[in-house]
Amino acid sequence: MIIVIQCKDQIGLVAAISGVLAQEQLNIVSLREHVDPSENRFFIRIEVNGEAPMEMLQRRLSTLLPEDAVISINPRPEKKIVVMVTKEYHCLSDILVRHHFRTLGASVQHVIGNYPVLEDICRRFEIPFSHISHQEIDKEVFEQQILDVLLRCQPDYIVLAKFMRILSPAFIGAFPTRIINIHHSFLPAFVGASPYRQAFERGVKLIGATAHFVTDQLDEGPIIAQQIIPVSHSFTATDMMKAGKEIETSVLARALRLVFEDRVLVYKNKTVVFE
Amino acid sequence: MIIVIQCKDQIGLVAAISGVLAQEQLNIVSLREHVDPSENRFFIRIEVNGEAPMEMLQRRLSTLLPEDAVISINPRPEKKIVVMVTKEYHCLSDILVRHHFRTLGASVQHVIGNYPVLEDICRRFEIPFSHISHQEIDKEVFEQQILDVLLRCQPDYIVLAKFMRILSPAFIGAFPTRIINIHHSFLPAFVGASPYRQAFERGVKLIGATAHFVTDQLDEGPIIAQQIIPVSHSFTATDMMKAGKEIETSVLARALRLVFEDRVLVYKNKTVVFE
Amino acid sequence: MIIVIQCKDQIGLVAAISGVLAQEQLNIVSLREHVDPSENRFFIRIEVNGEAPMEMLQRRLSTLLPEDAVISINPRPEKKIVVMVTKEYHCLSDILVRHHFRTLGASVQHVIGNYPVLEDICRRFEIPFSHISHQEIDKEVFEQQILDVLLRCQPDYIVLAKFMRILSPAFIGAFPTRIINIHHSFLPAFVGASPYRQAFERGVKLIGATAHFVTDQLDEGPIIAQQIIPVSHSFTATDMMKAGKEIETSVLARALRLVFEDRVLVYKNKTVVFE
Amino acid sequence: MIIVIQCKDQIGLVAAISGVLAQEQLNIVSLREHVDPSENRFFIRIEVNGEAPMEMLQRRLSTLLPEDAVISINPRPEKKIVVMVTKEYHCLSDILVRHHFRTLGASVQHVIGNYPVLEDICRRFEIPFSHISHQEIDKEVFEQQILDVLLRCQPDYIVLAKFMRILSPAFIGAFPTRIINIHHSFLPAFVGASPYRQAFERGVKLIGATAHFVTDQLDEGPIIAQQIIPVSHSFTATDMMKAGKEIETSVLARALRLVFEDRVLVYKNKTVVFE
Repeated sequence: MIIVIQCKDQIGLVAAISGVLAQEQLNIVSLREHVDPSENRFFIRIEVNGEAPMEMLQRRLSTLLPEDAVISINPRPEKKIVVMVTKEYHCLSDILVRHHFRTLGASVQHVIGNYPVLEDICRRFEIPFSHISHQEIDKEVFEQQILDVLLRCQPDYIVLAKFMRILSPAFIGAFPTRIINIHHSFLPAFVGASPYRQAFERGVKLIGATAHFVTDQLDEGPIIAQQIIPVSHSFTATDMMKAGKEIETSVLARALRLVFEDRVLVYKNKTVVFE
Repeated sequence: MIIVIQCKDQIGLVAAISGVLAQEQLNIVSLREHVDPSENRFFIRIEVNGEAPMEMLQRRLSTLLPEDAVISINPRPEKKIVVMVTKEYHCLSDILVRHHFRTLGASVQHVIGNYPVLEDICRRFEIPFSHISHQEIDKEVFEQQILDVLLRCQPDYIVLAKFMRILSPAFIGAFPTRIINIHHSFLPAFVGASPYRQAFERGVKLIGATAHFVTDQLDEGPIIAQQIIPVSHSFTATDMMKAGKEIETSVLARALRLVFEDRVLVYKNKTVVFE
Repeated sequence: MIIVIQCKDQIGLVAAISGVLAQEQLNIVSLREHVDPSENRFFIRIEVNGEAPMEMLQRRLSTLLPEDAVISINPRPEKKIVVMVTKEYHCLSDILVRHHFRTLGASVQHVIGNYPVLEDICRRFEIPFSHISHQEIDKEVFEQQILDVLLRCQPDYIVLAKFMRILSPAFIGAFPTRIINIHHSFLPAFVGASPYRQAFERGVKLIGATAHFVTDQLDEGPIIAQQIIPVSHSFTATDMMKAGKEIETSVLARALRLVFEDRVLVYKNKTVVFE
Repeated sequence: MIIVIQCKDQIGLVAAISGVLAQEQLNIVSLREHVDPSENRFFIRIEVNGEAPMEMLQRRLSTLLPEDAVISINPRPEKKIVVMVTKEYHCLSDILVRHHFRTLGASVQHVIGNYPVLEDICRRFEIPFSHISHQEIDKEVFEQQILDVLLRCQPDYIVLAKFMRILSPAFIGAFPTRIINIHHSFLPAFVGASPYRQAFERGVKLIGATAHFVTDQLDEGPIIAQQIIPVSHSFTATDMMKAGKEIETSVLARALRLVFEDRVLVYKNKTVVFE
């Protein structure tokens, strides 16, 4: 079993939680705890061997912990996700391959593209694809069509795998800490459009990619994972973009693994990642 | 306070330990736990805010935990070390600089060199240096002279900072998990002498360095930290050696920081590193 | 145009080569040269803007350069490859996806598997798959069946994407520096079988993967690229294998890109890689 | 001998240069060339075996190359440098140690500090130190006192090894591409003050450091080298600063090596680095 909890910090939380587990004859195999003193916030992730009734555990922990405690016992082991894309194939293909071979830790319910180009690769893996164009319609209507799909699929997470449209605050607000984006730069450098062109102009020697939860502040949500790759003067902006795609794929895969294994806790604008 | 414990695993250990801490009004700021199921071994490192009498804590924990428990409460915050060297300056200088500016997390009591070349740099930092030559004497006598210095200094750890002599099992056995070595390769590749020459001949594209505890099996002790650096066809064996020195310095510094902060627990031939 | 040459070293080679290019009004955009003094061997890779008749260039260069010169002008821009696999999907899928989206720099002619499990993924990408079992037949017969496919496909390179059988010296000798293998370890550590089990037992803190040309010395051929990933005490042997697969995929992709862009020159047991 | 040239690009430059070298019986051991097409700029670095009169080579190359050619033959093998510091010891100590053991590739003529705290470490290595305070004097006077030292030392390069004052455009303009700074962040993220505090607030998972030439645009000069180090939620802003110092030291050392080996060519706001 996996138990993930966050709440305000106070003395005795670990004793209270581990006491309940011991009484239920659950053996703790791995435990990670973190306190953020600036926020007075307590985070814990516990893996135990053994089984116990989940409702009872939930109830007993609730009575012992502060009122604001968010307790997650045995989170759904295989998450359901919807992937949103535009035209670039690299992140989506990686997700589809892992899904296909059952190593993603999640099940891809549906793919939504604002262009139809990636429908073919989805079809090859028998994943439903909806082409929802943003062109010649109001943003509100565009997002409502997306919401219709999401309501039908009830995903745990929405993965923006190189989805190049900006979503409205209303849309984002409906899925707090449930939308994951891959940003093509080492945030906070090169916020916004054309980061590889910016990186080229600046003559950087490393380029990066950042996977983060989406909030209504563009490119400002809690960071889950970041990675870099060295570049040199011999790289054109196009070469940088190609190199960037490699780490975009890699860092999104890593972030998704961490999230799907319930290793990422979010509080305010930061993540606690228990690797 | 910092509390580090290892013992055989059983149900309820975290509850028992954290219960004692809660009763003493100690707040857990950071907790890392690991169970090695193949060895049925429990490891924990806890940082708490607040103070409590150490002897009492030790006594209460001892009665609750299995008999084989090794309990370390508030390990000496600044370790005492003796550094042993041959002729290469890079690791020693890094240690001396950090010692000098009080950022090593340890106090260098003495440096022993089997050549006199590094005496000068020690003198500049006012660290006592003993030149103990291995030449024209029995190994036993050589090691006895080293032991005399060690007995006088009573170091917590002995750091082999590019000490190029092989110590006898008897010597090593006298300081279990207290001798730290920097090995100039990515163990277990290139065990033994001339690893850079071996790496050059093999045409590798990465070279590594390994910091490990010394056991009587040459280059086989528990690994603390490893690091690599990319190389290319344009590197001569000498260039590889130069690049290697950079990561030797860096990985030894990292390993020492981890050990001096009581983040490294050793069991059999492996380490648990709570970073 | 791309021009790649290796020959024994002598004074004036760059002048001779660049003189011919200048006379043909070809502008050198990028030039990388390397001399291995221990082998007295000259390596060069030149990218030029402009066009000139290839046969004429070849002829003029041949007359100027030492007799042993290997001159390759405008190597086939898109290589033909055959991929050989056993049961693991990760490297093959990555190759198939890049092939499908025309970013591999090569065209996958055929996939050969000694088990049938990866036939399905090939079918999804419309790549012919031959199941050639090694079971219950002589190795000679097994290899002859593979050779039949290779003769039909005439690949520039054979990619062993987790092909877990050892090929005979006769087979390997038929394709010198044309068989590329991904080895699941940081060679020369953990040569042979079960490297992740070996790595786990040893308690390493980094695991690696190596892409190399295959020679008749097992795991001893010229190394093209290597990469590592950090691991910790919390990794089981299975976790190490999973992490290893990620870098296997990544390092093989990188090695293939380098080879397909004609950036890798081989001499004896080493590579010169002009990145 | 080492020959480094940059000029506007045209057909036949490599042929012209290598022709001269061949006539002088100089054997090219390593050659790196790069053309920046967007700037129509040619860069080359050549290492040759053999000797020839430098003035004659310079003259013959000058007549063959475009008028704007900057030709550097056998640049001074050991550069002279002046180091400027404030209070932090880590970069300066690393430079002093390498200087002391003759592995810096440069000779430290003098250290200037706007605080006196680092005088002691300089004294230990017998390097002259000038305390030039910025306090209670005009910036102009402050800089004039620095200039007096520089005029006396005639350094090839000025290294800002954590010098925390902003120099005037007039000062900087007097030493174009000769002032090297280490910036405590992954530029262009976190420009300006308190980058570690900024990084902490943003919850980044990597922190970086950047070595660059100084221009009158704050933190905007040509980048020489960059490096990153992973961090996690468990890092306080102070921990990030400590981790940052490690890579500041390392990336500055790397940048200095590249510059001192004449591997860095600057044009406009970018560098070409021939590693």
